Amino acid sequence: MEIQFLGTSAGTPTRSRNMTACAIRTRGARHWALVDCAEGTQYRLQRTNLSPMSLRAIFITHLHGDHCYGLPGLLATAGMLGRTEPMTIVGPAPLRGMIEAIMDATQLALPYPLTWMTPADLPGAAVLPDLTVAATPLSHRIATHAYSFTEARVERKLDIDKLKLGGIASGPAWGELQQGRDVLLPDGGRVVAEDFLLPPRRSRKIIIAGDNDRPELLAHEAENADLLVHEATFTEEILRKVGPGPQHSSAAMVARFAQQAGLPNLVLTHFSPRYQDRNKGLATGLTLDDIEREASEHYTGTLALARDLDRYELGKDGTVQACR
Amino acid sequence: MEIQFLGTSAGTPTRSRNMTACAIRTRGARHWALVDCAEGTQYRLQRTNLSPMSLRAIFITHLHGDHCYGLPGLLATAGMLGRTEPMTIVGPAPLRGMIEAIMDATQLALPYPLTWMTPADLPGAAVLPDLTVAATPLSHRIATHAYSFTEARVERKLDIDKLKLGGIASGPAWGELQQGRDVLLPDGGRVVAEDFLLPPRRSRKIIIAGDNDRPELLAHEAENADLLVHEATFTEEILRKVGPGPQHSSAAMVARFAQQAGLPNLVLTHFSPRYQDRNKGLATGLTLDDIEREASEHYTGTLALARDLDRYELGKDGTVQACR
Repeated sequence: MEIQFLGTSAGTPTRSRNMTACAIRTRGARHWALVDCAEGTQYRLQRTNLSPMSLRAIFITHLHGDHCYGLPGLLATAGMLGRTEPMTIVGPAPLRGMIEAIMDATQLALPYPLTWMTPADLPGAAVLPDLTVAATPLSHRIATHAYSFTEARVERKLDIDKLKLGGIASGPAWGELQQGRDVLLPDGGRVVAEDFLLPPRRSRKIIIAGDNDRPELLAHEAENADLLVHEATFTEEILRKVGPGPQHSSAAMVARFAQQAGLPNLVLTHFSPRYQDRNKGLATGLTLDDIEREASEHYTGTLALARDLDRYELGKDGTVQACR
Repeated sequence: MEIQFLGTSAGTPTRSRNMTACAIRTRGARHWALVDCAEGTQYRLQRTNLSPMSLRAIFITHLHGDHCYGLPGLLATAGMLGRTEPMTIVGPAPLRGMIEAIMDATQLALPYPLTWMTPADLPGAAVLPDLTVAATPLSHRIATHAYSFTEARVERKLDIDKLKLGGIASGPAWGELQQGRDVLLPDGGRVVAEDFLLPPRRSRKIIIAGDNDRPELLAHEAENADLLVHEATFTEEILRKVGPGPQHSSAAMVARFAQQAGLPNLVLTHFSPRYQDRNKGLATGLTLDDIEREASEHYTGTLALARDLDRYELGKDGTVQACR
């Protein structure tokens, strides 16, 4: 599974950071999904190998502008590129009315159908062919959710030793069995696939959260998750100055939660523009090093701070690698 | 007077061109105005010395997404920067309802007041302190206007020879007269400013047009204009292939009009993304050279093709210079 950040700034952009959007897909799949779609998402996509033509679904965590103002433009561009495949949009209920008001005022007629869903519609729905999606309510100034993406199917390996012991020779039959299909042998005997398949590995799971000042609301979802993407808008020091009104998390809050939940991988994003990027010789005042330092004081798993266009791969072994 | 292009692509962006927006201001003025505001305009502004804090008014030519989808984000960012000065938005009537629907759905409360106007409200209104703005209806698939910006006041020079002949010694009195204020001399005589001011130079005038397939609709406005900014979405060859449905102009159509109208300066913009930028060694197929070549076959004035972030200055002598 892969994620790619298309924007990592909170509220307003910086010269190097667009506002929030993150792509997710199964490695090698043509289709992909998008979580949030701030202004400029379609510009960032031009610098990736992700096309609006193969975007299957868009999940909006909440209706603040820095998470959804890029949606009309992305829909319009997909239309102008000649897209005809349906697209699903999952988001808070008022999203549909807003987008339809925009489409009406700007005479935007899309040559492909939109399917509208709210987070409450997700249980049992097969929005993506390869990933099961669930929504968890979070705590913010406006209704907000996290979306969890879990592999819908996990390939199983053959128990080679058992096949050899059973006298089943390697050949096309092995391929059938590996796909879960029973096989008839030349002597008329039936080989039941389930008998020769090893137990499946655990399905990988990635949680991408919206703005949230109570990371512990993800405790249940995090139990079997491999990777959490969560906002860390401020350090504790700045959060104290800003006060709790904006309802954002500090790096320490998220890190402590991830540590307690036993989450093996944590990627922080959605940084206040007051933090300058690292690796700038002239940087004075607040930098993202402050965020990273604070998080690493409370978290011993694999930690990363996202930058625009960063890609991360979650391997089958549960480790996360940056692909730069 | 200065203009700066913040986006020059039509319909969808390219890697080097955002969609349409153009800033205009009087040279040296802190405040400025914006014509159209496609998605990404606020990102482009970060690469200029134009701030959302000093943006006085936004003029939307028409409600296609590639001319207005950046408006909510720009308004939100100006709010988050702490703007309190009022802002005027001039555009087609449905714009207000659309923006208010977006503000409502995304709980966007601005800390500064918006004044809404339509193009019909412009006559007699003083939207900008230094420029008089007029709107001209154009021909497109949706209601579209051009906005003309004319210097509201032109400084006048003193008739030095006449002052000397009249025995009025140089000094503070000259400054008063130059400002148009009459002066009382020590001997009690009154000097009437109007008697010693040379006739004012002609007010400079820039027309920035929206999408339009009938440039001749600007004939009256163009009579005393110094500079026309107009779309040239296609060459004639491509326009014939695309057909008249989209209601855009070819380079030849605009160039012929500008020639006939005697317009001294013409800047083309809003190019179909099918045209690649020039100066790319590997460019094959259609390039912006095709647009330029076609325009220059029909126009002998000063011609330029806009690129994102290009600045042009219209001098008091009526010439246009690129400031790169």
